[in-house]
Amino acid sequence: MKSLYLSAASCLLFLTVSGQPRYAANWTSIDSRPIPEWYTDAKFGIFIHWGLFSVPSYAPVGKDIPVYSKYAEWYWFRWQTDSGKVGKAYREYHLKNYGPGFKYQDFAKSFTAELFNPDQWAELFKTSGAKYVVLTSKHHEGFTLWPSKESWNWNSVDVGPHRDLAGDLTRSVKARGLHMGFYYSLYEWFNPLYKADVTKYVDEHMLPQMKDLVNRYQPDVFWTDGEWEHPSDTWKSTRFLSWLYNDSPVKNSVVVNDRWGKETRSKHGGFYTTEYDLIHDGDAKNVSIPRPWEECRGIGGSFGLNRNENLEDYSTSAELIGILIEKVARGGNLLLNIGPAADGTIPVIMQQRLTDMGGWLKVNGDAIYGTQEWKERPQAKIEGRYFTRKGKDLYLITTKWTDKLDFAGLTRKPASVTLLGLKGSVKSNVSGSKISITAPVVNPGNMPCNYAWVYRIADCL
Amino acid sequence: MKSLYLSAASCLLFLTVSGQPRYAANWTSIDSRPIPEWYTDAKFGIFIHWGLFSVPSYAPVGKDIPVYSKYAEWYWFRWQTDSGKVGKAYREYHLKNYGPGFKYQDFAKSFTAELFNPDQWAELFKTSGAKYVVLTSKHHEGFTLWPSKESWNWNSVDVGPHRDLAGDLTRSVKARGLHMGFYYSLYEWFNPLYKADVTKYVDEHMLPQMKDLVNRYQPDVFWTDGEWEHPSDTWKSTRFLSWLYNDSPVKNSVVVNDRWGKETRSKHGGFYTTEYDLIHDGDAKNVSIPRPWEECRGIGGSFGLNRNENLEDYSTSAELIGILIEKVARGGNLLLNIGPAADGTIPVIMQQRLTDMGGWLKVNGDAIYGTQEWKERPQAKIEGRYFTRKGKDLYLITTKWTDKLDFAGLTRKPASVTLLGLKGSVKSNVSGSKISITAPVVNPGNMPCNYAWVYRIADCL
Amino acid sequence: MKSLYLSAASCLLFLTVSGQPRYAANWTSIDSRPIPEWYTDAKFGIFIHWGLFSVPSYAPVGKDIPVYSKYAEWYWFRWQTDSGKVGKAYREYHLKNYGPGFKYQDFAKSFTAELFNPDQWAELFKTSGAKYVVLTSKHHEGFTLWPSKESWNWNSVDVGPHRDLAGDLTRSVKARGLHMGFYYSLYEWFNPLYKADVTKYVDEHMLPQMKDLVNRYQPDVFWTDGEWEHPSDTWKSTRFLSWLYNDSPVKNSVVVNDRWGKETRSKHGGFYTTEYDLIHDGDAKNVSIPRPWEECRGIGGSFGLNRNENLEDYSTSAELIGILIEKVARGGNLLLNIGPAADGTIPVIMQQRLTDMGGWLKVNGDAIYGTQEWKERPQAKIEGRYFTRKGKDLYLITTKWTDKLDFAGLTRKPASVTLLGLKGSVKSNVSGSKISITAPVVNPGNMPCNYAWVYRIADCL
Amino acid sequence: MKSLYLSAASCLLFLTVSGQPRYAANWTSIDSRPIPEWYTDAKFGIFIHWGLFSVPSYAPVGKDIPVYSKYAEWYWFRWQTDSGKVGKAYREYHLKNYGPGFKYQDFAKSFTAELFNPDQWAELFKTSGAKYVVLTSKHHEGFTLWPSKESWNWNSVDVGPHRDLAGDLTRSVKARGLHMGFYYSLYEWFNPLYKADVTKYVDEHMLPQMKDLVNRYQPDVFWTDGEWEHPSDTWKSTRFLSWLYNDSPVKNSVVVNDRWGKETRSKHGGFYTTEYDLIHDGDAKNVSIPRPWEECRGIGGSFGLNRNENLEDYSTSAELIGILIEKVARGGNLLLNIGPAADGTIPVIMQQRLTDMGGWLKVNGDAIYGTQEWKERPQAKIEGRYFTRKGKDLYLITTKWTDKLDFAGLTRKPASVTLLGLKGSVKSNVSGSKISITAPVVNPGNMPCNYAWVYRIADCL
Repeated sequence: MKSLYLSAASCLLFLTVSGQPRYAANWTSIDSRPIPEWYTDAKFGIFIHWGLFSVPSYAPVGKDIPVYSKYAEWYWFRWQTDSGKVGKAYREYHLKNYGPGFKYQDFAKSFTAELFNPDQWAELFKTSGAKYVVLTSKHHEGFTLWPSKESWNWNSVDVGPHRDLAGDLTRSVKARGLHMGFYYSLYEWFNPLYKADVTKYVDEHMLPQMKDLVNRYQPDVFWTDGEWEHPSDTWKSTRFLSWLYNDSPVKNSVVVNDRWGKETRSKHGGFYTTEYDLIHDGDAKNVSIPRPWEECRGIGGSFGLNRNENLEDYSTSAELIGILIEKVARGGNLLLNIGPAADGTIPVIMQQRLTDMGGWLKVNGDAIYGTQEWKERPQAKIEGRYFTRKGKDLYLITTKWTDKLDFAGLTRKPASVTLLGLKGSVKSNVSGSKISITAPVVNPGNMPCNYAWVYRIADCL
Repeated sequence: MKSLYLSAASCLLFLTVSGQPRYAANWTSIDSRPIPEWYTDAKFGIFIHWGLFSVPSYAPVGKDIPVYSKYAEWYWFRWQTDSGKVGKAYREYHLKNYGPGFKYQDFAKSFTAELFNPDQWAELFKTSGAKYVVLTSKHHEGFTLWPSKESWNWNSVDVGPHRDLAGDLTRSVKARGLHMGFYYSLYEWFNPLYKADVTKYVDEHMLPQMKDLVNRYQPDVFWTDGEWEHPSDTWKSTRFLSWLYNDSPVKNSVVVNDRWGKETRSKHGGFYTTEYDLIHDGDAKNVSIPRPWEECRGIGGSFGLNRNENLEDYSTSAELIGILIEKVARGGNLLLNIGPAADGTIPVIMQQRLTDMGGWLKVNGDAIYGTQEWKERPQAKIEGRYFTRKGKDLYLITTKWTDKLDFAGLTRKPASVTLLGLKGSVKSNVSGSKISITAPVVNPGNMPCNYAWVYRIADCL
Repeated sequence: MKSLYLSAASCLLFLTVSGQPRYAANWTSIDSRPIPEWYTDAKFGIFIHWGLFSVPSYAPVGKDIPVYSKYAEWYWFRWQTDSGKVGKAYREYHLKNYGPGFKYQDFAKSFTAELFNPDQWAELFKTSGAKYVVLTSKHHEGFTLWPSKESWNWNSVDVGPHRDLAGDLTRSVKARGLHMGFYYSLYEWFNPLYKADVTKYVDEHMLPQMKDLVNRYQPDVFWTDGEWEHPSDTWKSTRFLSWLYNDSPVKNSVVVNDRWGKETRSKHGGFYTTEYDLIHDGDAKNVSIPRPWEECRGIGGSFGLNRNENLEDYSTSAELIGILIEKVARGGNLLLNIGPAADGTIPVIMQQRLTDMGGWLKVNGDAIYGTQEWKERPQAKIEGRYFTRKGKDLYLITTKWTDKLDFAGLTRKPASVTLLGLKGSVKSNVSGSKISITAPVVNPGNMPCNYAWVYRIADCL
Repeated sequence: MKSLYLSAASCLLFLTVSGQPRYAANWTSIDSRPIPEWYTDAKFGIFIHWGLFSVPSYAPVGKDIPVYSKYAEWYWFRWQTDSGKVGKAYREYHLKNYGPGFKYQDFAKSFTAELFNPDQWAELFKTSGAKYVVLTSKHHEGFTLWPSKESWNWNSVDVGPHRDLAGDLTRSVKARGLHMGFYYSLYEWFNPLYKADVTKYVDEHMLPQMKDLVNRYQPDVFWTDGEWEHPSDTWKSTRFLSWLYNDSPVKNSVVVNDRWGKETRSKHGGFYTTEYDLIHDGDAKNVSIPRPWEECRGIGGSFGLNRNENLEDYSTSAELIGILIEKVARGGNLLLNIGPAADGTIPVIMQQRLTDMGGWLKVNGDAIYGTQEWKERPQAKIEGRYFTRKGKDLYLITTKWTDKLDFAGLTRKPASVTLLGLKGSVKSNVSGSKISITAPVVNPGNMPCNYAWVYRIADCL
């Protein structure tokens, strides 16, 4: 494809002769690319943390443990480098259960995945109502779930399951019309190539792996992480992104996040990321995020499966649906994580949670998918009350059943007010921009759903 | 203790000088012992299948698989002896995952139980509302969960977890005021002592083990199984039971079932047993059982954990609460099984189910514990409608919310009609023995519970 | 078989009607049985220590370690019970290499025997010149090398190699015309049956195993050990022996040793035993032993393979041949031990030693097999000089080449004097009972053998 | 170091200002470097094949198996790629013992080296009389015995023994005054980097590893192999060698072989190599080799330990000493291989062989070390008769004791004729260039050694 040089002062933007823009390897250009609509419409994705850490799958739990210390996928790092209480607990646990000579690499033999059924996984994701899937192709441990030739004998085909996990899942997910994506850690905790010479690592190991992933599996999400030790220049991030946006097989559909260098979060890249409601270690719930964004979190306190977690450590279905609603109402997506076991099964409690969410979305998805934040919503927060909008329609979502619901902000008299899942109209009084809705009479015999209820106020904006 | 011979014609019953009866080693005498009240009041117990089978924890699933073939704890037997399709599937699975030289005994090394926390288990059981617990001290594989000296190197202290699992759990369960019991398999599939000389096996292996269990841990339930290859004479069952009832440390509190010989089910022993609604391979739901009885079943289709089961194979909380209600309404108990993993964790989905049941029982336990079958209940079955009684009070339990509930059978005008969990009275009309109840207005904001609802009709019998 | 009571005062001996004696269950009677001639003629046997201990196959080495502490087959016992320096070393070694939770039973999975080739073993034994073989059917660990039904899941068929090692070896050994025998430990260090009730153990475990071994494999040597914790009455040894001598399938050929109770060594049973030149913790080299006897020892300092032993810990071929000669000259047998590896191979250095011995015996066996101690030999010991006799022939064996060899004790002028392996006569002068032999001229080109040389002085006694 | 360009026509040779030559990156220049004298004087080295292949340590044996198919270190390759009988045997063996899902990489966990004692190894090598040691730093499997950062998680520190095996051995060997060296395979059978892009592999993987080895451990021998798939240009061999000869820390002492590209054997590099008496698949015994050369071979038929080999597969000490003599007499070195076990022990039979060689060399080393081929030796071969020379002295070595030894070729009357190890002179007649030696009278009591005997004919050339 011939390209025609057009850009003026900034020299940043190219357009091909066919009119497609080309992106230069700098942030101004990269940031100018709009995020594909499929992503902002999708709202709900499934994150999957799977790797060698799924073998020990152990982290401490409890209220006194900091958020990041609950991540079971950080087992190796905490055990080896944390000099505090948490590190000590890991060392004791490891010694007791594996013995003094057992290294992290020795877990490989127990990553068996014998029950891994990618079609079953993908069916579950579809049932959950999620629209995209993001798999850890490589976490900070450096172990890849695909046969990366840069990672010989440290990937899932050479050791452990002896199977192309990434490829098999990609096929199944795409076959069900969901978007497939990959998490990829830029850095690797203990890779001696990385530790000795980051430039060589980036050129000979990291970038080849990233391109290999894109060319092989054509993912629609490329979700980087582990960027914090170096600026994006060192990682050559814009160079990769310009290739990804201009010349890769997914140039039109791919979405990326903001984790491209120590200086890029909430500044550059694609959508912004929050994690367990933290953004830059600030409280993501209390900031306004000016770009498409995405909250990621586990069902419990860990991304990788933590066998040490019990029911009290897991969010309930009600809580998860509440989280999804809250994020969407604020313009975000939810990337909800599951942690499969080393044997390839998805713990049934996770299946339960995803299925409950799918059940709710089946009734109420109209208020979620393709919607936008209602920026003009009333300032005063009322507990359990959220709004989304789609075109001229407004959705009031409540996680707490209330007999009367009043608010202001309509620009016209609504065409109708309904409760999603219930036939017929709901009683309401409109006075100017104000509306007062009276909840319908429902009982356990005719409730449309559990957890949260949605009033659709049609054609009112 | 001196005993005084009293019995007349039957010559079966002794009374000690202190007035306590003594039971002779024959069925007429054994059967004459009343079942301790704690058990008939308890209604709900937790069954635990845990053993070497928890390592492979694999069985086929699906609608075309017969009930018994779904039992993962039968792995060894199916694999070795089933010449049909199911056996073939096992053989293929085993070869693929463990290789040609891997014997069942080789699973011992992977039964690690490193996360086994008996206090946590016991807390969960208490939370579930169950009143007793029955653990597989030894399943048909012969592997014991306690340091049985008759089973050297084939028990959980010598190999595998290297821990007295039965003892540790017993302590924790009893400390919470629950009754502890043991499942014990009379026969052992492949024990060469059993296969060579059953009498020697009974005398030197089985009976010593059974007495050891009773003397060591003083269980209140002794739940036998694997009785079908021999009549109770061969097993010397009445001899054991007369010792258990007369001289053991649990003679006053212990409860046993009806699995004491190929001729004893639904005939002799203590309570009768049904299993997945089967009784003598008949349909337990359509027979009247003349003695205290107990239904046992898994949350899914297996007793031992089956990693191959997914959400669709598990009963929902609604279904399990329905089962409990149905059994109790028909005079039975429910012994609901969980299958812990080889690492000592209870799968969180099982924790979820038990906790949901406990939540329901917290509101509605009054209609379950200590109640009896209402034998005079209306003949015509109405879907989702059940009764229990306690003294003069009647409980109508419905798993389907209905606006009007009519039935007959009162012997007097009730003192009150209430919905458990809801303040105040419920509207009702009584006319002679007939009553018509109008469901109260509830909505998602004030519902007392999910799954099923109980009307208490006080002082009406 | 009807028996005819004959014995007089002692009432100890029976003769069957066919004239065969019967032995009563007391030591006087048992001791009266002559030891079968095949055994006293055989002189040289192979002892095999193989079992779970062959997996760790580790013991300390060095001059400061006491004899018994060098036995690798005692790993479990030292590690668990030795409170001294040696025990500490074991505990450190075990922790470092297997970790804190690894029990002895966990070694079973690594006893694989995949290269065990019993025909090859038996060929080697034949090549070595040995005439009998004694295998540890069960050492003090209690683990049996045959499918003993009293030792379910603690035998080589149920766990580990999943193979009848004893049976397979027996077949191959017998097929080559060698005598097969078994070592069997009466006690078991940690068997809870033994520890709880020795009588029950003897009746239900030990005696059934011993008879099973005899009936199944018909061994010609029954070599007991581990007798020291109880008198022979407790072990019911004479009862077993009377059965063995009267009614077993090997009643005519079987040979036993003197390890039948804490009071029996060098007193009762069959041949007496010495071990690393110790007898009753005395120096066996300096006592006269009044009965057929047998020295047992390893090629190195251990019976079970000790991977920690290096060349300097192994006896040389010269030393082993010297030991054989010394024992035979004093009327004993040598039961030389080998310790196969857990994979079923015989370390090649052991093959080398046995083959060297066989090479020497091929030339000089005439001076060993079927010979007797020359009790009238000169009193004064000369280093490296030994005698044996057979009928009227005398053999002078020297482990040190000497030009002149003089001694007295002939009762007549010899018919000839020859050096075994060399054609023609050797020069000698006879004067009365004295003889003076002049060594022939040999050089590296025509030496008949290495290590030791034999002069046959024919027809001189 | 400044260099001064001197070379004329060929433009190949540099001399530094200090006078040291510099070698250019072409064969003419590289080949011009003389081989350091320590190496041609040393005559006897120990080769060590140790790696993951030491875990299965299995290869077929027997006369019908071709030489290369007996190499146990080729397990992976034969099993995966050999479509013939040998490959089939491997596949059957592997399936039976490890199961269908077990990959080569899974062997890593069993490469434990817990008994590896590098000081003990080095002592043994010293005792053997060897002067240098060559360890497989990396065989064709690609697994490195040192912590190569190019081989993360595929080296002995990250997985398996978790120890720097190469470094630890180097220290111990050098401490005893022996020369240390490394074998290094240029190609790697299954490394995907190699398979995808050999140039990238050479630049980013192979050359960095080679320099790392040299810089880290300063080896005196760099013994390459696996060169046959590409010409030396592709491997950039001369570039590496020019660095090695000019600028490396071992530029003065290092010795290399001739395996640097598919065209280089017996043409370029340092000493030439033969292997099991093969050279270029020709018979090395029947060619004259015009450069210093070295025969490498195992004690048995394999380099890596083959547990399947028994005594008959091992060369005897006599044979090995014969081989050493034969090679030295023809101007070569012997690099005799041992294959340690995965647990770090050197099989005792190998210790025996090396010790026997050392014993012989202690007496006869004068005829080996520092000697040269006697090129003027008599043409007619006499079985078991060899010559070496040192200065004016001649050594006649015979592996067959003979009473008379005649030959011609002296240039003067010898100053003396002696048998090494025996005091005094040996009788001889000299007539012109002819000499006739009469063997002295020895017997087993005064023989100086076994296996072979050396006559030193002093000052006769």
